[in-house]
Amino acid sequence: MTETPTFLEDPTDTRDAIMRATYLALCNHGYADLTIQRIADEFPKSKSLLYHHYDGKDDLLLDFLEFMLEHQRERIPAEPTSSADDHLNAIFDRVFRTPMTDDYRDFWRAMVELRAQAAHDEKYRDHFTRSDEFFRELFANVVRSGIDDGVFREVNPERTAAYLQTTITGVMTRRVTTNGDIIEDVREELDEYVRLRLLAGETGDSTE
Amino acid sequence: MTETPTFLEDPTDTRDAIMRATYLALCNHGYADLTIQRIADEFPKSKSLLYHHYDGKDDLLLDFLEFMLEHQRERIPAEPTSSADDHLNAIFDRVFRTPMTDDYRDFWRAMVELRAQAAHDEKYRDHFTRSDEFFRELFANVVRSGIDDGVFREVNPERTAAYLQTTITGVMTRRVTTNGDIIEDVREELDEYVRLRLLAGETGDSTE
Repeated sequence: MTETPTFLEDPTDTRDAIMRATYLALCNHGYADLTIQRIADEFPKSKSLLYHHYDGKDDLLLDFLEFMLEHQRERIPAEPTSSADDHLNAIFDRVFRTPMTDDYRDFWRAMVELRAQAAHDEKYRDHFTRSDEFFRELFANVVRSGIDDGVFREVNPERTAAYLQTTITGVMTRRVTTNGDIIEDVREELDEYVRLRLLAGETGDSTE
Repeated sequence: MTETPTFLEDPTDTRDAIMRATYLALCNHGYADLTIQRIADEFPKSKSLLYHHYDGKDDLLLDFLEFMLEHQRERIPAEPTSSADDHLNAIFDRVFRTPMTDDYRDFWRAMVELRAQAAHDEKYRDHFTRSDEFFRELFANVVRSGIDDGVFREVNPERTAAYLQTTITGVMTRRVTTNGDIIEDVREELDEYVRLRLLAGETGDSTE
């Protein structure tokens, strides 16, 4: 039985209830096998409400992606609350978490499928463009704060952010599309990048 | 009109002709809208041959992915032919090529869609596991040769390879699923990683 994230547990209005049902159906069936009927199966209210609000499966899924992004916007503080170094590590810990729980894997499988829709669907592409811009700005803020505090070198925050985010997209994608386990290796090298490129006072001497 | 890569231009047997038709149909329609009929439209021989050889669209596409991987295996020399540093740069140049031609973009859109199938289809996951292992070994060989020649530091070749490959997966994925242009930024930081982490004799001093 798939568990929903805490913020979806007790929906207070119809949209939240629809979002919860979409989350569950998406995790259980993936994108390709998802139907409005399968979302309705997870929805305690009348199925006609789904058809009333949405113009089909993709319309609903695009609203779901928007909802998840809004949640991230609200949840994540604009300014880092810990040292930039710790903050970056906390983000990496979330992305690289091991072992991967079934729920987390199911959700990321679905997200990789949804992102792939952006290859041929402009509406999905618009969403992932905005979503990537949000997370890039998030990383750039952390890097900027690290520079201000003298923890990080005077790097280009936007460029560093684009790079970190791209590596993380690669991690999430490979993690749910292959059976290989590259997580520990990638994390160690990402930490090396941060150490050598960002951390003030570190030298190029390898730890090995 | 989509152009096929040189090795697909003049198919000499039925399988090659099927692979060429699949390549064209996949680039023109993407995965979701692809049908055996659309592949047949690009195929000069009898459509019944397609049904005779393949048990549906995914069976054909899995054979196509295998065919493309075989081609890479044959094309890429097992041992680097230039200095490890130049070799790595040549690979990056291919991945980061700008401007992105329409044909190249269409092909990569389709590849991102095919990889996303691996989220819920074991056969695709098996393929991308083997494909990723092949490219990881390719990168590891380049790194190993760089260490042997004293061009690179004594890093862990497998770990470095896993990292480079993951970043590149992120690049290909983001490039065809968003409208943003992060290519130059990501390339600059990837070059910095190589400089600071791999190149012997380099120090941690930033170039900025």
